[in-house]
Parts: sequence; C-alpha cells; structure tokens
Amino acid sequence: MSVAVSDNAALVEELAALLGRPYVTTPDEDQEPYVVDWRGRYHGRAAAVVKPASTAEVAEVVRLCARHGVALVPQGGNTGMCGAATPDASGHSVVLRLDRLNRIRAISPLANSVTVEAGCILQTIQEAAAGVDRLFPLSLGAEGSCQIGGNIATNAGGTAVLRYGTTRELVLGLEVVLPDGTVLNRLQGLRKNSSGYDLKQLFIGAEGTLGIITAASLKLFPRPRVSALAMVALPEIEAALTLMGRLRDAVGDRLASLEAMSRGQIEVIAEHVPDVAIPFALEAPWYLLIELTDTLAGTDLRTPLEEVLGAAFEEGLVTDAVIAESGAQAHALWKIRHSVSEGSKRAGYVVSHDSVVPLENQALFARNVERRILEAMPAARVVMHGHIGDGNIHVLAILDPARFPDGAAAAPVAARINAVVDDETAALGGVISAEHGIGLSNRARLGRVTDPAEIALMRRIKALLDPAGMMNPGKVLPPEA
Amino acid sequence: MSVAVSDNAALVEELAALLGRPYVTTPDEDQEPYVVDWRGRYHGRAAAVVKPASTAEVAEVVRLCARHGVALVPQGGNTGMCGAATPDASGHSVVLRLDRLNRIRAISPLANSVTVEAGCILQTIQEAAAGVDRLFPLSLGAEGSCQIGGNIATNAGGTAVLRYGTTRELVLGLEVVLPDGTVLNRLQGLRKNSSGYDLKQLFIGAEGTLGIITAASLKLFPRPRVSALAMVALPEIEAALTLMGRLRDAVGDRLASLEAMSRGQIEVIAEHVPDVAIPFALEAPWYLLIELTDTLAGTDLRTPLEEVLGAAFEEGLVTDAVIAESGAQAHALWKIRHSVSEGSKRAGYVVSHDSVVPLENQALFARNVERRILEAMPAARVVMHGHIGDGNIHVLAILDPARFPDGAAAAPVAARINAVVDDETAALGGVISAEHGIGLSNRARLGRVTDPAEIALMRRIKALLDPAGMMNPGKVLPPEA
Repeated sequence: MSVAVSDNAALVEELAALLGRPYVTTPDEDQEPYVVDWRGRYHGRAAAVVKPASTAEVAEVVRLCARHGVALVPQGGNTGMCGAATPDASGHSVVLRLDRLNRIRAISPLANSVTVEAGCILQTIQEAAAGVDRLFPLSLGAEGSCQIGGNIATNAGGTAVLRYGTTRELVLGLEVVLPDGTVLNRLQGLRKNSSGYDLKQLFIGAEGTLGIITAASLKLFPRPRVSALAMVALPEIEAALTLMGRLRDAVGDRLASLEAMSRGQIEVIAEHVPDVAIPFALEAPWYLLIELTDTLAGTDLRTPLEEVLGAAFEEGLVTDAVIAESGAQAHALWKIRHSVSEGSKRAGYVVSHDSVVPLENQALFARNVERRILEAMPAARVVMHGHIGDGNIHVLAILDPARFPDGAAAAPVAARINAVVDDETAALGGVISAEHGIGLSNRARLGRVTDPAEIALMRRIKALLDPAGMMNPGKVLPPEA
Repeated sequence: MSVAVSDNAALVEELAALLGRPYVTTPDEDQEPYVVDWRGRYHGRAAAVVKPASTAEVAEVVRLCARHGVALVPQGGNTGMCGAATPDASGHSVVLRLDRLNRIRAISPLANSVTVEAGCILQTIQEAAAGVDRLFPLSLGAEGSCQIGGNIATNAGGTAVLRYGTTRELVLGLEVVLPDGTVLNRLQGLRKNSSGYDLKQLFIGAEGTLGIITAASLKLFPRPRVSALAMVALPEIEAALTLMGRLRDAVGDRLASLEAMSRGQIEVIAEHVPDVAIPFALEAPWYLLIELTDTLAGTDLRTPLEEVLGAAFEEGLVTDAVIAESGAQAHALWKIRHSVSEGSKRAGYVVSHDSVVPLENQALFARNVERRILEAMPAARVVMHGHIGDGNIHVLAILDPARFPDGAAAAPVAARINAVVDDETAALGGVISAEHGIGLSNRARLGRVTDPAEIALMRRIKALLDPAGMMNPGKVLPPEA
C-alpha cells in the first residue's frame, strides 16, 4: 500500500488543498466502507477517497485527476449489486463520494417536481415529497442509504415501476460533470423538450462511465391516499399474469405493485430473518403481493380487490388469500418482500440474476431456468422473486455455504449458472439486467449475449465522451475480446 | 431540374432495381407532396423519393445512398412544423418515405404494449389499441395523417402529456437503421432495462439526423371509461395553475388535459373556421379546457369537477363555465381547441412558437412576450394557446396577410419576433421547442440560446454516428459559426 501512497502523494496533496484535508481519505486511513461493495464481493484500493462539497468542487476534482491521469470511481451510497462503485485493486484511482452534495435545492408541488443533489438519500427525497403532499415513487430495499445519484446512474427499478416507470422515466433534468470537467446543466424540470438531442439520457444508466451526475430534477406525483394490499397463494406462476389482467380490467391504473415470490424464496426468508410472519402454510408454488392505490381519499379499493380475488378463488386461480386489515398488517406483508435480500444472503452463497423478459415469456422463463440450473447444479437451492408485471424475475441459486464459503470457491459454478440463465434470457427475448445494472460483475455476461452492433456503438459512445478512459474504467462495457 | 436528373441517373436506376420502379419518384414525376412542408414554407427538390417496403429495404437504400454519397431525408406523414422532413433545394438528396412500413407487428393487452412499423398512422395505432380495450395516449392535431416514426423522431407532445408523458416516455423499444446500414433492433418491449447504455434514446427526438427509425414498441394503458370535460373563462392566466392545483387535490391523477387559449386565439378561430361553436361571449382574457378521465367505469368525475369549479367561481378564479352534458358537446368543445392551427393559418402569416418554461414562470412568460412582441411589432396580432400543465404555451404573432403575403416578406419581422420570444424563454429557464422539434426553421435559434457546451456535445454525437453527414443534413444542429 505504501507504493500507491508514494506514487500518489502529489495527487493527494492537491486534492487536500482543493477540498480540505478532512475530505480526503488516504490508504493509511479507513477506506474500507468505500472500497468494498455492499455484497462484499469486490475489494478494491484507492489513492484517495474524496468528498467534494459542490458541483464546482466535483468539476475541480475531475480536472485535477485528468491532469494526473488518475481514474475516478463515482460512488453514492455504495449499495449497488454489481460492483459498479468499487475501485480496482491497483490503488491508483480516486473514489469520488457525493455525500456532501445532499441538498434539496427546490421543491414545487405546483410543478410536481423536486431538484436534488446527487448525494441525497432516496428516503430523504421521499419524505420531502410527502412533506408537500406529493409522492416520489421510486422505492427499493436500500432506500434508507442509497443515494439518488446512484439510483439514476443505474436506472434503478424497485417495486413501483408497474405504475410509475423506472428511474429514467422519473428524471426531468440532470446536472452532469463531463470527463473534461465541463458542467452540463439541464435542471429546469421541463416536462417537454424537443430542442435537440436529449443529452441527459446518455448518463442515466451509464453507471458513472460517461460523467458524474451531481444533481437532478425529478417528477413528483399526486400522493396516494388510500391503498389495499393482499397476499395470495397461486397454483402456478401463469396465474399471476391472469390476475394482473383481471385487476387492470377491474381497477385500471390503480394497480400499483405486483410482487411475486416462489415458495422457496419465502422459506428462505422464514428460516433466516427473525420477526417475519408468514400468513400461509406455504403449500403453493408461488405467492403474490398485490397493492392497489388511489390518489382520491375515500375511494373503495377493497371491494373490487375482494371481488377479483373471490372470483379467482372460485376458478382455482388463487388457492389462498390474505387481505391486510390494517396499516400494521400491510407493513407485515411488505416486510416479507423486503426481507428477500437479507434472507437470501444469510442462506448461503447467492448467485443472483436480474433478467427481464417479455411478459408473455415470463412463465416459460421461470420454469426453464429452474430446470436448467438444477440440471447444471443439482445441489443449488433455486428460489425466485420478482416484479411480475414488469417481466423482471430475480432468479437466485443459493449454494451451500459450507461447500462454497466465498466467491472464489463459487466462481466456476456461478459461471455455469450464469450462462444457463443468460442463454435462456436471450433466447426468450430478454436482457440480463433489468434494474441492477452491469457494473463489474455482469460486463462479460453482457458481451456474451448482446448484439455486437450494440456493444460496438456503446464503445464508440464511451470513447467519444471519455477518450482517456478516466471515468469508472472497467465497468459496464464488456472486456475487449 | 434536368441537371439533377442526369447527375443522379445511375442512383435512380439502382434504386428502381432495388425497390421496383413504382416506388421511386423522380423529379420528372410528381414529387410535390414530398418536397414541400405542411406549412408550405420550404420548397425542396429530390433526386428521388423512395418508398421501401421493409426494414431490409430501408437498410439497402441507406447503403446505396452512402455509396453514392447522396444524403437521405427520412419522411413520415410530412406534417411537421419545422421543415425537418423537407429536402434542400439542391435536388441531390433522396427523400425516404416510410409509408409502406405500416404493419402493426404485434399487440399485447397483457403486456400493455404494441409493436408497430414507423409508417403506421398515429390514428391507426390509437384504433388498434382501442380494439383490445387499451389506450395509446399520444394525441395531436395531425393524428389522422402523421406517422408514428415522425412522432418519435420529433418526440411529439400533444394534449395528453400532462397525464401520460411525451412520446419519448411512451417508447419501450426501437428498430433503427444506422447511417452505415446496420440495423439496431431492440423491440422486445421490455419495461425495465439497465443493460448498458440505452441506445434508443439517441434516436428519439433526433429528427432523422442520426438514423432512420423503422419500427417501435410502444406502451399501452388501461382505457379511460369515463370522462368529464369543462371549458371555463379565467380572469387571468395565473388562475389556470391555481385551478390545476385544486383539481389535483380533488381528483389526483385523473386530471388528463388542461388546454388554455387566449381570448384572441378563440376569436381567430371564430372568425376563420366554420362550424365551431363558442359557448362564451369572449369577455375574459383566457379560457381553459379541463378534462378528467378515469379507467374505472361508473366513477363520478362530474361531482368533484362541479365542486372545484363552483368554489373557484365563488372566489372569482373562474368567471364562467360550461360542462359538457354529452359526448357531442364534449366533441364541440374539443373542436375549438383542435381548430387552432387551421384558424391561425387562415388569419395571416403566422410566426409561431413552441417555448416551454418552468411552470412557475409561465404567467410571467405569457405577459412578457405579449408586451415585447407588441413593442417590436405593434401591428401583430398576438394570440396564445397551450398545454398549461406542461409549461408549454404556443405564442403566435399573426401578421397582416396583405402586408406579409409570404415567408420572404415576413422574414425580417419574424426574426425580430423570434429573438424576443427566444430571449424571454431562455431568461425564464425554458427551451424554444417543447414538442415541434428544431428541423430547419429553428436551428439557428437553437444555437443562439443554448449552452455552447450542449451544442458542442450534440455536434460530436452527430459526427460519431453520421461521420459523412448523410442523414438529414442541415437539420436540428445549428449552422456552424
């Protein structure tokens, strides 16, 4: 480590002069929270971890690093699933944290928009919206610690996509520092704009490889005032989509969430997460959380929900059902869904997937991957949960922690399982990442199943915006053949 | 014209061999419908107008033209407002019509999506959606003849953006022929995708300057089953936004459209369009169409609408109101709004604008531009209509047709008026095109009021994708200084 320090001494000194010494963390200090990813799979090193306080300081850091030929790794809450925010092991790059850009710059209930800095915690934005009687709909497991800049950089999904769309669809404007230190600023929050190319789209989902998002203007929505939640047991996964159609016929766009879990997934949660109450005997192969919401107080959502479920029960589309009778019960049902990551992580080494396929192919996808993973690795515990209305089913192959204590031990098996899932995804017209991104862990896989013409164009865009390769190198784009 | 023909004889011959002679229109034949824009402002010439029948044929035409060094001008329904689909006067470019790519390839009420070819008429898609009990929400004046490829290429807006977003937000996937003839195909209609850069975004709103859109996968929505429509008179434009807030508080996202017209705008319609019934004495400065919709049959929208309008009347926020009592009455009220373009066109030479500003600045924008245009050109008739909930007010300066019989005569005055509107737009944080695009008519104006860093990046993207400048040259990007 001393080598990296002495190599980078001049850089660190300049960074400290620019930002103040407390905002530069060197390898001699505790960098651990910033150089290891949330899942503990990647362990990097950094010449420095820096925390600029403003967009101007971010731009200065970018220019300074460019002069030194040092790569930058932007990092938000470091809750990503794919290693996109972890530096490599060389110790020569700089991790740029956005924590101190954490102001809500403006909020307008009239325009239904909010302008926030990239380091704002997602939950803080949700609360600010609620404070003006509005909804910011992005919602996901890490919302208490993830930062909006990271959500935008990965085009995060979550549990409200069915009704409100992905993060990309929630972004009205962006402020971005380009790899040459130029600041692009389109934060007006305009709902319509056909004035030339929509440059901000380039940076959404680019995981920091084309520039650093420093602020965003986001959509707000009328706040739902009533909701109804049910959890139902299904005889087969196809029933979930049939139910979706029935619910849409009955309540239109009041259908807000449809979250499916396989029986195995719920068993994993029951075994490993305390204080989760499962309201079923777990005799069915699939379970589905259904949430309806309405922005109009007094709307009766419970009656149509009961009617749809009653009819479905008569037909055998649903074999059991619980409707939440209170906010506390609703919370308890959602807690099952929100315990998915924690429970799975404790159950063993998780080879997890984020595929999305056309809705029509979803059931086939679920069956085929389960069968093919078990053929390839009979000892795997294959469980699934997913955003069933989006075509996005997370397939998890959980490996025995005694046999596979870490990523190195699991790597060959994981590669085999990944190949099975990716091939099936591609064969059914899907893509391998719906909402987690590509980062480090999925770049080779992306290259394997994506049209080479697309990859070639991605590479050309990367080379255009970041010719020196200073922005989060080694992420997203597949390794060169 | 014979010069162009003989120059291009070999090209025409090859095009005819590729597509069949009936699908190649030479300058000796009637090219008029394809080389003059809808407003009759631009008169171009073309070596050929071609109508390929498939994506493969489009790609062949692109490669053929690239070999000949001949530029391509993609054209949909030729209903654009900015000349983006009109060839220049050299007679050396090829106009590529998408008419024959007009199949609806697939429609899925389950996935709420439809896959269409670029030449599909917008209304055909609306009808196909209705046929499976779904809504395709894009709606605009030219919907009976505009093509979806053109809608996507200009990121069209229309009257349903408030509720459903712009065309960009309705696009799930695109098939695009790149300037080198490569076909990019991402038509799966996936709701979520974080698998590398979202390449399709480049082509939405690029007006054919980066490639040719040949097909698209689009979002469908639950179909509204009830609606309520009112037209109200307002004492000032500010009242429209206050009403918007009240309506959102009362009915949440059931607020579907908010279309404002200045008194002068309605007077122009009353004077020039027969069979339009105006239900007011036109004593107020502004009028507002309000539409609420709901996807749930039986929902009572009329009561909350009456309550909000009743309270607003008591307070003087609304000075008069008509609520449609029947479908026919609703149609008659919408007809006023839909007669805006026709009425204005007949009233004189129209210098029209498409600015969008942050909602908070909308009233100030409307007042300032009216005052400043009248200072610059006292004889102008300044009228406005707009999508008030989007910040997009169309300001029209109508010039006396006797004094200004055509564009040449009006040009100096139009330039002065444009400068006034553009300066005010930029000063208030807006952009000059909300939904019509840039095309030919707005490119210099775009350059004048846009951050040079943005223009520079747009130019680099253009050079990256279309290094030979073969795709719709001279459009969108400002002329080089």
